[in-house]
Amino acid sequence: MIGRCPPGQRTELAVLLWERALDPQKGTWSLPGGRLRDDEDLDTSARRQLAEKVDVRELAHLEQLSVFSAPDRVPPPRRIASAYLGLVPLTADPQLPADTDWHPVSALPPMSFDHGTVVDHARTRLAAKLSYTNIAFALAPADFTMSTLREIYCAALGYEVDTTNLQRVLSRRKVITPTGETRAPGRAGGRPAAVYRYTDSGIRVTDEFAALRPPT
Amino acid sequence: MIGRCPPGQRTELAVLLWERALDPQKGTWSLPGGRLRDDEDLDTSARRQLAEKVDVRELAHLEQLSVFSAPDRVPPPRRIASAYLGLVPLTADPQLPADTDWHPVSALPPMSFDHGTVVDHARTRLAAKLSYTNIAFALAPADFTMSTLREIYCAALGYEVDTTNLQRVLSRRKVITPTGETRAPGRAGGRPAAVYRYTDSGIRVTDEFAALRPPT
Repeated sequence: MIGRCPPGQRTELAVLLWERALDPQKGTWSLPGGRLRDDEDLDTSARRQLAEKVDVRELAHLEQLSVFSAPDRVPPPRRIASAYLGLVPLTADPQLPADTDWHPVSALPPMSFDHGTVVDHARTRLAAKLSYTNIAFALAPADFTMSTLREIYCAALGYEVDTTNLQRVLSRRKVITPTGETRAPGRAGGRPAAVYRYTDSGIRVTDEFAALRPPT
Repeated sequence: MIGRCPPGQRTELAVLLWERALDPQKGTWSLPGGRLRDDEDLDTSARRQLAEKVDVRELAHLEQLSVFSAPDRVPPPRRIASAYLGLVPLTADPQLPADTDWHPVSALPPMSFDHGTVVDHARTRLAAKLSYTNIAFALAPADFTMSTLREIYCAALGYEVDTTNLQRVLSRRKVITPTGETRAPGRAGGRPAAVYRYTDSGIRVTDEFAALRPPT
């Protein structure tokens, strides 16, 4: 699955789904996926399945989410699903096939099989990781104002976050770095806004538990 | 797999392994495991496989670790392994079958297939989770002095941790709670030591990222 915020609209966390044209469960919406090939591992397979739906050059983060293995999760024959969490930046706008679209996770269409549960797991994992890692780098544009970053955190967490607190915590933890540039204020006026970027382009734990830091 | 510290010895992180009596890879050591049955999901299967080796009444925590799916990870036919991290307290001392023993993760015997890689993943995951969750509740006895808890953290992290810092951080985060009792000082003398317990008996994120806390 992919979490991202659809372009040109209110910032929301959205997931890429395709509509089943045939039974079983015709008309319900599914996460991209398919069978593991004999010559590929699960990571390779997840990237391939996704690439067959959309252009994934902008896939900024991909991780194993969880395995869904209830014996009756799909009609026989039994299938075990290894689900992934994939993230693309707010600014990504890949071409989509006709049966495929972004859906806000807050308003999902009728979902196939246990795919709604998979999306719930992904939301929960993402929200938890926002609090102890720099994972939002994968949702943010290359550079951004705190106002934009705040909208991304609000969308992914599902509640309001204070811009000043967010800026202070992320700066103290060296998660974000000022670029030295500013951007003109929006229609609300005020001072020009400082521009930031994420310090790292890979995921890391940002928690400041100094007592447990390895010796340097 | 199970991480724990073997009783009656220096506190160490250890893993439960069994020695293969037959080929393939006769004489190497394996993590407990086996085939998924048609009527069980992976969590149920992991608990069953473990229970067939040892008495797991004291299994304090169990979580999906990662799926190992390289096409050539075992001789054909292909098998995909869904690995679990299971933890038991320092004080647990279950009866073991003749082919099974605890091995310190710092001195593993020759390991079967990719099982050494699985143990490395588990160690890394455990160390990371120590810094942003209360996961050490699953390794600690029901109540303990800070000196005992420090040994558990050192063993799981692989480096020294300061007792005073550890006590301060865990208390501030309300991860541990004083029971109000004290224990006689050890042979080194000094004052009686305060006794603590873990505040929660299930895992939770303990990170103090107030800016991202949901509204109450």
